[in-house]
Amino acid sequence: MNYRMIRYVLGWILIFEAIFLLLPALTAVIYREKELLHILITCGICAILGGLLVLFKPKNTLLFSREGFVIVSLSWITLSIFGALPLYLSGSVSSYVDALFETVSGFTTTGATILSDVEILPRSLLMWRSFTHWVGGMGVLVFIMAFLPLSGSYNMLIMKAESPGPSVSKLVPRVRTTALILYTLYFAFTILQFVLLLFGGMNVFEALNTAFATAGTGGFGVKNDSIGSYSPYIQVVVTVFMLLFSINFSSYYLILNKKFKDAFNTEVRWFLYIAFGAIAIITLNISHLFDSVWEAVRHAAFTVASIISTTGFMTVDFDLWPNLSRALIVMLMFIGACAGSTGGGIKVSRYMILIKDIIKEFRIMLHPKQIKKTIVDKRPVANEVIRSIYVYFGTFIIVFALSFLLICIENHDITTAFTAVAATINNVGPGLNLVGPTQNFIFFSDFSKIVLIFDMLAGRLELFPMLLLFNPATWRKK
Amino acid sequence: MNYRMIRYVLGWILIFEAIFLLLPALTAVIYREKELLHILITCGICAILGGLLVLFKPKNTLLFSREGFVIVSLSWITLSIFGALPLYLSGSVSSYVDALFETVSGFTTTGATILSDVEILPRSLLMWRSFTHWVGGMGVLVFIMAFLPLSGSYNMLIMKAESPGPSVSKLVPRVRTTALILYTLYFAFTILQFVLLLFGGMNVFEALNTAFATAGTGGFGVKNDSIGSYSPYIQVVVTVFMLLFSINFSSYYLILNKKFKDAFNTEVRWFLYIAFGAIAIITLNISHLFDSVWEAVRHAAFTVASIISTTGFMTVDFDLWPNLSRALIVMLMFIGACAGSTGGGIKVSRYMILIKDIIKEFRIMLHPKQIKKTIVDKRPVANEVIRSIYVYFGTFIIVFALSFLLICIENHDITTAFTAVAATINNVGPGLNLVGPTQNFIFFSDFSKIVLIFDMLAGRLELFPMLLLFNPATWRKK
Repeated sequence: MNYRMIRYVLGWILIFEAIFLLLPALTAVIYREKELLHILITCGICAILGGLLVLFKPKNTLLFSREGFVIVSLSWITLSIFGALPLYLSGSVSSYVDALFETVSGFTTTGATILSDVEILPRSLLMWRSFTHWVGGMGVLVFIMAFLPLSGSYNMLIMKAESPGPSVSKLVPRVRTTALILYTLYFAFTILQFVLLLFGGMNVFEALNTAFATAGTGGFGVKNDSIGSYSPYIQVVVTVFMLLFSINFSSYYLILNKKFKDAFNTEVRWFLYIAFGAIAIITLNISHLFDSVWEAVRHAAFTVASIISTTGFMTVDFDLWPNLSRALIVMLMFIGACAGSTGGGIKVSRYMILIKDIIKEFRIMLHPKQIKKTIVDKRPVANEVIRSIYVYFGTFIIVFALSFLLICIENHDITTAFTAVAATINNVGPGLNLVGPTQNFIFFSDFSKIVLIFDMLAGRLELFPMLLLFNPATWRKK
Repeated sequence: MNYRMIRYVLGWILIFEAIFLLLPALTAVIYREKELLHILITCGICAILGGLLVLFKPKNTLLFSREGFVIVSLSWITLSIFGALPLYLSGSVSSYVDALFETVSGFTTTGATILSDVEILPRSLLMWRSFTHWVGGMGVLVFIMAFLPLSGSYNMLIMKAESPGPSVSKLVPRVRTTALILYTLYFAFTILQFVLLLFGGMNVFEALNTAFATAGTGGFGVKNDSIGSYSPYIQVVVTVFMLLFSINFSSYYLILNKKFKDAFNTEVRWFLYIAFGAIAIITLNISHLFDSVWEAVRHAAFTVASIISTTGFMTVDFDLWPNLSRALIVMLMFIGACAGSTGGGIKVSRYMILIKDIIKEFRIMLHPKQIKKTIVDKRPVANEVIRSIYVYFGTFIIVFALSFLLICIENHDITTAFTAVAATINNVGPGLNLVGPTQNFIFFSDFSKIVLIFDMLAGRLELFPMLLLFNPATWRKK
């Protein structure tokens, strides 16, 4: 294990965190908030510690597969541990575990909160919360790679481990250029949404926070009723952007290059079918609860977009809807967004390949002597990819089941325990019952919160980096 | 598609059903019940229809893979459609869908009932209910193969499709002899339990019914409180036999041949670890509800054995236990018994191979250049088997999710809908809340009941035969 290189990358992570903290610091200056002190203290700690860690660049920059996984998981843990300090030091959150929960929820773009009243929080800390979504959405290491010339072949390795989805395709031959293109698109979409929200009458602070939380598909809001009290125009803008941020960013790159056919690939089509199918079913199921069909469609579309993108914003309390809608919402949590987007969940492409592969197996059962392939976008899917998807589903089931059991120890109702795990491991945010959209996660014991923190990180990093971190074999010499 | 051969086998199924019906007919004679008439009418219908269908033996007895699947699923559907007649004709169950639900629940050894008071049912019909468990437990076609010399290579095919678990191993070179050995063991264990129950003070009728329902891991009881009012001795006997019938029958054959090491293979050990682990956790979790630890252990052991064997008997209402226990019980439903036993669920061996394969994949992630194999019982598992297990899990998730959504249309609470599907697709019987152990399935709409009937059959036949039956490609020419 190349410990020096791990130390070196973690140092850079801290330096970047110090830079990220300048945005909430600026917010504190603008609004003359006393929390400026606590933000600057954190900033200083990160800068000094980070500076010390990067003082000596290791001679051996060679990284193997296991170092890649360890660097990714340790980076996210480090970011969260120090990122929680402003909330804790300022006294806005009295327990450090709670502050850590909130910060992990931010970076992993989960959006599950332990706060019952966000409106009393200082604006600088609200800005930090939303900004963690934006930073975490595209991936911190991808971000660093875009700016920091860490030469070496491990870049692709880290990008693979940090990016969502079963396979990463480089848009251009160089990994660093790919990362830059992705971040430019991310930045442009965020600005676009920000401007559209300003047009809708949001002030700059609200618009910036909402754009950050949408872009990262996070879901932290600056109002207690999330997006509920904003105008229908704003709700529609947020709906559209939640869906846009759920689609593989390489599709936008392909559109810019006028490759429209390639942009609307099978995964994007499946994603749209699922989203619009769910909107149709839920609209039918809830139409009697609203004055007009248009209103039902709007809330159904917002909720579906919010859940399938794993953002977690809300306009109405969907926990009061009929059980068919509630069940469908929980199932959408497990589906999630497209690979290569900022959304969480298991990802549409994994289900797509799973279902296509099962259909292929059915064909083989009927005609055992014929040779069949699983075809996506006119190309056969590599056996490696299919195997990795099955392993992902299997691992997901095991992690989910164990987490669910551990949460059940507290003896809240089963739907609460089940959806608390579903909403965190899929990085959605709200669940049902005690963790419903109008509720929060404060009532859980510290033990349960740590389990859910693990689930948020495991979900965001797609299971393996977090699991390998706790696997003794990872640390064994040889 | 060899329709003549399908017709011929279905004819034999009906003839055997007529023979099976002689047992409840005899019961009706002994207890002088008027239901004798309805049983004999059904018996006559089966015998005449079956006789007509087998009148001409097809010249071409050749069967391919798809005919094997179709024969298996149609056999079970035929058995259930005619098996429901005594309940319906006698007026004991007023709706035919309810009677079909009860009969499918019987043959598939689920044990989910639509009856709120079983004690008012005539003894002949109670006997028929329990006997369907016994017939369905080991597999009807396996039974027929044991007695009927249907020459041809398709025997192994049918045995594979009907027997639970990822792979079937022939105990002896000839399939028919294997089937005979399995049924002899099944018969012997049933007799042994019957005798031990008589010793405990049960009368012949109760002991026979309980032995049938335990042997098939079904769970239909003759008392409204299931096994609750019987003595601790009887409860312990039933506990032990539920566990015995959950273990691969080939293990007993190996023990008889003094191959003790082979008998206690990895699956059996995993099964015992899971069962005793669950008993320990539940005992700790419920000990405060009982007067003594011994009582808590007894009820925990009974419940765990009942659920993991997918029998569904009960001694106390486990739906009143803390949520950790309730959640664990639901998870045990999905695990189920060993392959090659009469129990349902996904089967321990599938989880075992899944987990071992995931661990292997983790090793490959850490050291990508090393070649690794998934080893069980000192032998590498064939890639075919591993792939089929992943496909099974994937298919299971899809069938489960769709069934769950369809049941949710009725708007009962989510735990009820979830556990109703879990308890039927895994052939367990009781679930939680409205389908808890003291409740029954009568309140569901006919639509939901048909979905659950499908799930019971799909679960018992391990998904593929039922799914392929509804796949248009199965029926397409060439």
